Amino acid sequence: MSKGLPKRSEDYSLWYNELVKRADLAENSPVRGCMVIKPYGFSIWEKMQAQLDKMFKETGHQNAYFPLFIPKSYLSKEASHVEGFAKECAVVTHYRLKNSEDGKEVVIDPDAKLEEELIIRPTSETVIWSTYKNWIQSYRDLPLLVNQWANVVRWEMRTRLFLRTAEFLWQEGHTAHATKQEAVDEAVQMMEVYAAFAEQYMAVPVVRGIKSENERFAGAEDTYCIEALMQDGKALQAGTSHFLGQNFAKAFDVKFATKEGGLEYVWGTSWGVSTRLMGALIMAHSDDNGLVLPPKLAPNQVVIVPIYRGDEELAKISEKAKEIMTKLRSKGITVHFDNRDTHKPGWKFAEYELKGVPLRIAMGPRDLENNTIELARRDTLSKETVNLSEVNLEDYIFDKLEEIQNSIYTKALSFRKEMTTEVNSWEEFKEILESKGGFISAHWDGTGETEDKIKELTKATIRCIPIDREDEDGQCVFSGKPSKGRVLFAKAY
Amino acid sequence: MSKGLPKRSEDYSLWYNELVKRADLAENSPVRGCMVIKPYGFSIWEKMQAQLDKMFKETGHQNAYFPLFIPKSYLSKEASHVEGFAKECAVVTHYRLKNSEDGKEVVIDPDAKLEEELIIRPTSETVIWSTYKNWIQSYRDLPLLVNQWANVVRWEMRTRLFLRTAEFLWQEGHTAHATKQEAVDEAVQMMEVYAAFAEQYMAVPVVRGIKSENERFAGAEDTYCIEALMQDGKALQAGTSHFLGQNFAKAFDVKFATKEGGLEYVWGTSWGVSTRLMGALIMAHSDDNGLVLPPKLAPNQVVIVPIYRGDEELAKISEKAKEIMTKLRSKGITVHFDNRDTHKPGWKFAEYELKGVPLRIAMGPRDLENNTIELARRDTLSKETVNLSEVNLEDYIFDKLEEIQNSIYTKALSFRKEMTTEVNSWEEFKEILESKGGFISAHWDGTGETEDKIKELTKATIRCIPIDREDEDGQCVFSGKPSKGRVLFAKAY
Ligand SMILES: [Zn+2]
Ligand SMILES: [Zn+2]
Repeated sequence: MSKGLPKRSEDYSLWYNELVKRADLAENSPVRGCMVIKPYGFSIWEKMQAQLDKMFKETGHQNAYFPLFIPKSYLSKEASHVEGFAKECAVVTHYRLKNSEDGKEVVIDPDAKLEEELIIRPTSETVIWSTYKNWIQSYRDLPLLVNQWANVVRWEMRTRLFLRTAEFLWQEGHTAHATKQEAVDEAVQMMEVYAAFAEQYMAVPVVRGIKSENERFAGAEDTYCIEALMQDGKALQAGTSHFLGQNFAKAFDVKFATKEGGLEYVWGTSWGVSTRLMGALIMAHSDDNGLVLPPKLAPNQVVIVPIYRGDEELAKISEKAKEIMTKLRSKGITVHFDNRDTHKPGWKFAEYELKGVPLRIAMGPRDLENNTIELARRDTLSKETVNLSEVNLEDYIFDKLEEIQNSIYTKALSFRKEMTTEVNSWEEFKEILESKGGFISAHWDGTGETEDKIKELTKATIRCIPIDREDEDGQCVFSGKPSKGRVLFAKAY
Repeated sequence: MSKGLPKRSEDYSLWYNELVKRADLAENSPVRGCMVIKPYGFSIWEKMQAQLDKMFKETGHQNAYFPLFIPKSYLSKEASHVEGFAKECAVVTHYRLKNSEDGKEVVIDPDAKLEEELIIRPTSETVIWSTYKNWIQSYRDLPLLVNQWANVVRWEMRTRLFLRTAEFLWQEGHTAHATKQEAVDEAVQMMEVYAAFAEQYMAVPVVRGIKSENERFAGAEDTYCIEALMQDGKALQAGTSHFLGQNFAKAFDVKFATKEGGLEYVWGTSWGVSTRLMGALIMAHSDDNGLVLPPKLAPNQVVIVPIYRGDEELAKISEKAKEIMTKLRSKGITVHFDNRDTHKPGWKFAEYELKGVPLRIAMGPRDLENNTIELARRDTLSKETVNLSEVNLEDYIFDKLEEIQNSIYTKALSFRKEMTTEVNSWEEFKEILESKGGFISAHWDGTGETEDKIKELTKATIRCIPIDREDEDGQCVFSGKPSKGRVLFAKAY
């Protein structure tokens, strides 16, 4: 039944890689570090995109599209941005190939060298702010609330499907505002949008927080983030939202005429989530049998598998299945009837378990006689017989899907609570990190120096300063210096 | 009222460029040859995407995502493909930058040279067929019906917004089949899907046809296409669908086990439309006042402009406007109420004309008294007073939008008929081409040689051999050699 998937308890990392491949989510491409997102994986990403896009539009944003290429000199215009992004990137140097002299292959045409190299965007602040310079003259042009869905490239030596790939898909919002407060509010709002999406759709509980200076986005004044915990006790940064201050406005000279007749630099934000969310979704809920999908993001919420001998039985079951599908669809439930005769029911059961379909309906001749179905839940692997004379099936399934959505979330939340430990000494810090993992809530003296040391010694980083943390006087778990509150440490993806 | 837009009759090309910019559709980016698609332009593209995506899924296709990069050697694997695509492309040679010695800029790190150069995809047949090799083993894996929405790059020296840009957005379908007939049927089906979209949604009539060998896609056995006629009498290829034969299967060694136990090469198709469709949409319908959008693709189908003095009047009109919006939205009509106090009604009228909103409702104090609205049609620039006591407004507007959609299409169709000329001599060919333009229906001897000569002498190319052409014995308009039927010539974008 497990399709030979490795066990999480034995090799979490191998389990993840095999699951991603066998559930037809993604695979490595012939191009080093790049992935192919397979149709099933992409259909989940499409559901995520659609919901996020809706939430962006509901908060007043519009989509646009900016170029893939960034002139090399643009990267250098914002001093800290170039430090963060100029290093590992794909560089276009030529714009033409020609036949080799032996005619057997194509080679670079040395005459077609670009005057200025082009960088494949690792993120688009520079090219977008250079455009905003022309779009913004007056306070009437503000706020400017724009998002784009795009591919970006950050050259990575060690890649993992969805979690870290050279090319990935993402959305990047880039907004411009007349006041600092408005920009800060926007950055916080988008962190909240991401958190709501993660919790209500992905069923992944997240901590809302602010990054320490070390972990801040290159070019930001503040980075807000949502942090999730995976089943192996490692943290995963699921989305970030940056308050950029006037940094990019100054770098690209974007000023606006105020209502009062002055001329001021614009305030900015940027925020993004990527196909990395797919990694979070997979790792948060799945088990040794395969994927577990929250109903709100499952491409098919219900699958119907007929159990039959011969065409006549199939015909009868099909008729019933069609009735059921019509009912379910009337409630907006997505359902697939797998009547392939090339595979046996047992094979199909394992396949849909592997692919994480939330509910499976099985129907055989005896079910027809008794007017029943067998209903199996993917998350709990439990089964029940449902008598169709006794329930309104579409309502029953609708409620069951909601129950699954909530149950998956609650389970993940309990796990996170269990895996969040308050520690008050350095010995305890190291011990918990090694024996248990998870989030460690500890006092920190606020310096990058201490943060670096802790990272060096333990590989744990400060995931965030939680937004809702309580004031509490204490001493830094490492340096013993005074601290005003706890931060969350963890090893992270 | 014309916002100073140049006149089509005076300078069609300038009119187009200015319209694209002033209607906030797109603009040139700081990166040579690349465009920025602005929010309003992108919202139209999103409507096109959503409808096309629906049509692709209804015909059984699934979306996926393949890498941006193509190893250089892949391009050479299909002999004619490399001729067509390897030449003008963006080449990535390095994967890292470093600080320059003076620390003032970033420069290429010579140590980070790629062993094999990567090409930014100009189209993805090669990388996709190299992937299909692993996905296809048996007839059970076929047909494979996959599409991707992506950006592609073809280096262009002379670019025009939407019509020809170095980077553009498109979709590319790539399918694999067990039999030749099935692949041909798929290619024809997708041409029909494109034609239906162009005619029913864009309101642009198209000729369905087959390309001559000279104009065929590099690597295809047959290229099906849809060809539209613009208002300046030039043709525009709006979509292509290729029957690839077994060419890419052979190049990438993609074989499948047949039902009968044999081993055969797979048959393929590919098909695509791009942001070029935006150019076709703009040029097909717009006028000297700006954009004319078909209601089915207009981001806002109706705009309401209040005409008022003082807050009290505005409040009363707003109340009425909200009632109207609720009614219209109940019929699925998109409507925007422009209550900005920063602009005068006259300015707004011109703005929405420029942006092509199909219907404009104006409401002033006298309208409130009389329970009327003023309704203006963008396509005909005609106005009427509608008495709200006499009509069911949502039905009236709904029908009006349908009427506009049909009327725009009919107008474009009449224009194309008028601008399609049968010619029977070379003198006539040249004369019509120069004096009138449009499609020229003429006999052709079927040779690439004649086609090349005609192109050299007149810049006209064979747009297609219409699918529905009648058999007719005749003589080639250029060579006088025998011909079995007419083909369509035109100057083209
Ligand atoms: Zn299905
Ligand atoms: Zn609106």
